[in-house]
Amino acid sequence: MVDADILFVKQVEEKIRQSNTVMYRHGRSILTGMGVSTPQFNALLTLQEFGSLTMGELCKHLFTACSTATDLADRMERAGLVERVRDTNDRRVVRMNLLPKGEEIVDAVISERCQFLREVLQEYPEEEQPKVLQFLQVLAERMESVDARGEVSS
Amino acid sequence: MVDADILFVKQVEEKIRQSNTVMYRHGRSILTGMGVSTPQFNALLTLQEFGSLTMGELCKHLFTACSTATDLADRMERAGLVERVRDTNDRRVVRMNLLPKGEEIVDAVISERCQFLREVLQEYPEEEQPKVLQFLQVLAERMESVDARGEVSS
Repeated sequence: MVDADILFVKQVEEKIRQSNTVMYRHGRSILTGMGVSTPQFNALLTLQEFGSLTMGELCKHLFTACSTATDLADRMERAGLVERVRDTNDRRVVRMNLLPKGEEIVDAVISERCQFLREVLQEYPEEEQPKVLQFLQVLAERMESVDARGEVSS
Repeated sequence: MVDADILFVKQVEEKIRQSNTVMYRHGRSILTGMGVSTPQFNALLTLQEFGSLTMGELCKHLFTACSTATDLADRMERAGLVERVRDTNDRRVVRMNLLPKGEEIVDAVISERCQFLREVLQEYPEEEQPKVLQFLQVLAERMESVDARGEVSS
């Protein structure tokens, strides 16, 4: 791989990270106001996306040690954002559910982000706007497919 | 705003988040192996990007309470990833610097991500590859410019 290629790929990495970071700034004030930390918000987002999860599944999704995720879960439970319930099929398993208050926070943050992104989209000529989503869909799809391939071979 | 638009913008938000999440999975094993947590890695990345930072600047970049950032800094200092030094111009100010060990970890993770992204880029026809970076550059630029505008008006 020549140097130009390395630089090229590094820039792709930087730009994906930068877009996510800028987007992430929006809705932050809601979290600060509610006393919700970044790891807590990531846990809420994960529960909204995947539904009720066991602690093992949650720490896997969050890439955290299970002790850290347990501490996180305790705080979120005390704040009324989530609840722990015993699995109806297997009473030994404890699942975590998003509570309405947790869901409201996620929705409020995503809605702020969307308001920001709507402004960003308006920077594009109208006929190009559908292409932005299309590009991002193709990129995410290809990333998922390469990622899945890697998991099988490793 | 009609419902179709809301759905459209929500999908844009989701796809940016999804791409970042998939990319984030790569190089994770390096961090797990070194006992570096996600918030610690984000702090290292920030120090590499912005250079030496005061604790106040660091917690602002990381969107964390300063008590959390101080705890993070203590752990990273003990692990030999960063050092705290007094500012040469103002001895009251303490700055945090990335140490070679911290830098090596960031470089190793970014390099793993780039290896993954190179594979993703190969899913595109060769003539489309430069357009991927171009699209991401334009998106990040427009996001930064709308973000900067918002900060002025608020």
